[in-house]
Amino acid sequence: MAQGALPGFRDFYPEQFAERAHVTNVWRDVARRFAFAEYDGPPLEPLELYTKKSGDEIVGQLYNFTDKGGRDIALRPEMTPTLARMAAAKAAALRKPIRWFSMPQLFRYERQQRGRLREHFQLNVDIIGEADVTADAELLAVAIEVMRGCGLSAHDVRARVSDRRLLHAILAELGVVEERHPTVFGVVDKIHRQPRDVSREKLTAAGMRDDAIDDFMGLTKEATLDQLDQRFGGAAAVKASIDEMRRYFACLEGLGVLEWVTIDLSIVRGLAYYTGIVFELFDAKGELRAICGGGRYDTLLASLGGVDLPALGFGMGDVVLTELLRERGLLPSAAPHPQVWVAAEAPSQQSDVRRAATALRRIGVSVEYALRDQPLMKQVRSAKAAGAEWVLTLHLPGRPEAPPEPHSWKPDAPPDWNRAITEIGL
Amino acid sequence: MAQGALPGFRDFYPEQFAERAHVTNVWRDVARRFAFAEYDGPPLEPLELYTKKSGDEIVGQLYNFTDKGGRDIALRPEMTPTLARMAAAKAAALRKPIRWFSMPQLFRYERQQRGRLREHFQLNVDIIGEADVTADAELLAVAIEVMRGCGLSAHDVRARVSDRRLLHAILAELGVVEERHPTVFGVVDKIHRQPRDVSREKLTAAGMRDDAIDDFMGLTKEATLDQLDQRFGGAAAVKASIDEMRRYFACLEGLGVLEWVTIDLSIVRGLAYYTGIVFELFDAKGELRAICGGGRYDTLLASLGGVDLPALGFGMGDVVLTELLRERGLLPSAAPHPQVWVAAEAPSQQSDVRRAATALRRIGVSVEYALRDQPLMKQVRSAKAAGAEWVLTLHLPGRPEAPPEPHSWKPDAPPDWNRAITEIGL
Repeated sequence: MAQGALPGFRDFYPEQFAERAHVTNVWRDVARRFAFAEYDGPPLEPLELYTKKSGDEIVGQLYNFTDKGGRDIALRPEMTPTLARMAAAKAAALRKPIRWFSMPQLFRYERQQRGRLREHFQLNVDIIGEADVTADAELLAVAIEVMRGCGLSAHDVRARVSDRRLLHAILAELGVVEERHPTVFGVVDKIHRQPRDVSREKLTAAGMRDDAIDDFMGLTKEATLDQLDQRFGGAAAVKASIDEMRRYFACLEGLGVLEWVTIDLSIVRGLAYYTGIVFELFDAKGELRAICGGGRYDTLLASLGGVDLPALGFGMGDVVLTELLRERGLLPSAAPHPQVWVAAEAPSQQSDVRRAATALRRIGVSVEYALRDQPLMKQVRSAKAAGAEWVLTLHLPGRPEAPPEPHSWKPDAPPDWNRAITEIGL
Repeated sequence: MAQGALPGFRDFYPEQFAERAHVTNVWRDVARRFAFAEYDGPPLEPLELYTKKSGDEIVGQLYNFTDKGGRDIALRPEMTPTLARMAAAKAAALRKPIRWFSMPQLFRYERQQRGRLREHFQLNVDIIGEADVTADAELLAVAIEVMRGCGLSAHDVRARVSDRRLLHAILAELGVVEERHPTVFGVVDKIHRQPRDVSREKLTAAGMRDDAIDDFMGLTKEATLDQLDQRFGGAAAVKASIDEMRRYFACLEGLGVLEWVTIDLSIVRGLAYYTGIVFELFDAKGELRAICGGGRYDTLLASLGGVDLPALGFGMGDVVLTELLRERGLLPSAAPHPQVWVAAEAPSQQSDVRRAATALRRIGVSVEYALRDQPLMKQVRSAKAAGAEWVLTLHLPGRPEAPPEPHSWKPDAPPDWNRAITEIGL
């Protein structure tokens, strides 16, 4: 028998599942507090759902195949196309703005690299139907509140935000014609990952003068709204975009997450469909890949043939986040264990053991007991091996050395647990 | 754009997701109370993992394909092979008995029938490493406690149990040679679904005499342990099996679920690998397919090339159970909704709205507010449309008609919520 999972796939033994559940529980709890509703779609979708958005090149990265009915289908590599499909199908009936989240497992057939996964779980949070930056702030607050919910602080994680409209306006001021903006965006996207010379060369090729390049590359290192306002505020388009960003930051302040946020014009998000504010979350030390990325994609839903509604969202995978939490000692330390182990002095008490276990389980306590007759000492050892927090011992009545009470707890259990046991006459 | 999911796949809009979550929450809670630990495996596995257990015929029912690395793989149609693989890989290190559960989505490419699904979610609960009937009782109690956790009673659902060893022993007594037992099991499996004449014919072909057939068909309609003991108790193998069943029932009584259970010798579970006690749960009216089925499969793990450990388990799908709960009015009536809607009298209070929302969200309350400036009346209407349970209104100070308090709740909110708002000065 094959002893392992397929390359790139994870087995979640209880220890690993507990880690995954820890993360997904925080995701779900924060989304609920922000009044987002959970949805899910099928893990299999028609292949065209993905090629329509990302072109045929995407197929090389997919788990795609032809099913027995002759349909070209794929395991979902991302959730947005499913979201677009579902929202479009019921757009008229849904209350706007739509506030939805999902936690799908996603699949990519990437060329196998050492330790590179072909699946991960991803929190997807989206708002559909609100064009104002108030929605952008609400969305980023969800992502940051997840960090806080995981026990991380603004010293551990930074949210870097930019606005594609602002970048467009600045480029126009720097004399870059609109047709060249995509090229410049491509350079910006890699500006911290490729040599400065290469970036300069490409910007020159995009038609930027040397002094504009100096200017621009300085901005992608560090910039405040005040600096941008001072430098470019004379241009109406830049000014309008800066004013939007100021409102955005005021909202973030009201939402209590401003201290996590930095402006970073080098954030453009590789994919082409973003239209406004974009953001990524990183560990503050900069050692890991992005924890989360998202932004506004006002034209995507319509271009997918769905509803023409402004929209924004982010995706946050489980892998980088879990890595960061492990590094910071913020993951649960062990698999779940029973709260109570019920033990007995004699095999004749097996029925009482089950009655006691049942009484406790029915008030919500997690209970285990030995399925096979064992001496008391062995039962206590089993309890310890299982990591049980309490041991309830049923004593054999009538023995000369019998304790005064028919049962005892180690350590002392909550009163309602003891009451449940006393009530069934033990 | 394709407006729907692939045939046989479900979209879970928030309303449907809430139903699914209701069921999976009960599954998880009951499994936790019985001290089972959650695990998961990949939704894709090597094809041979399934053909090894079920033969090549299974391929016709699978979503299988060749991946880009040339591997024959399949979307998991069941969880047991993954469980066997995972348990085998760490058998030596795992505490026995292994008590694990999982809630995978499973896939079958069945010929499309009206309304027939190609995916479902299934609770899998298994115990590995305990041969005694005490484990069989513990397992059935989990399944029944799930019914109770869903709000169902012993009047709604019946657990029908049998024991393959008992059936083997009875057939031997009725003169059926061992080679013919599989044929008879096949007849028994369909005995309530095919005409009596067809069953009789097949039993005759299996070598049973007419009077034995009468005898046997009576037993598959109704039988108590006492009746079986009286009729066949003289045979040592039957007697041993009956004694085991008596111990099993005593355990079920201790676990508080005996009233749900009936002996039914017609339960054999189609699949060939069961070796001992088997069971199914049905709605008492008999209108739906089985809610759940399982039993003991002591030789399966070894035959899959894994560990040689006794094992038992059951699978419970979400579809039939949800259907039953809907019929009985036991499903949540609506999608989740915010607990609190924060409203304000004037646009100038937008920052306070966000501060109030944040204060409440951080103490665990689900909060929404209008992302766009709206008159108070419209905000209250939005709150109602969202199904918010409470509305918190921030009043504009200084107006002649301003209320005495800077904020008010409708209806009166829990004191700690109000404290959270007062503490931030609102």
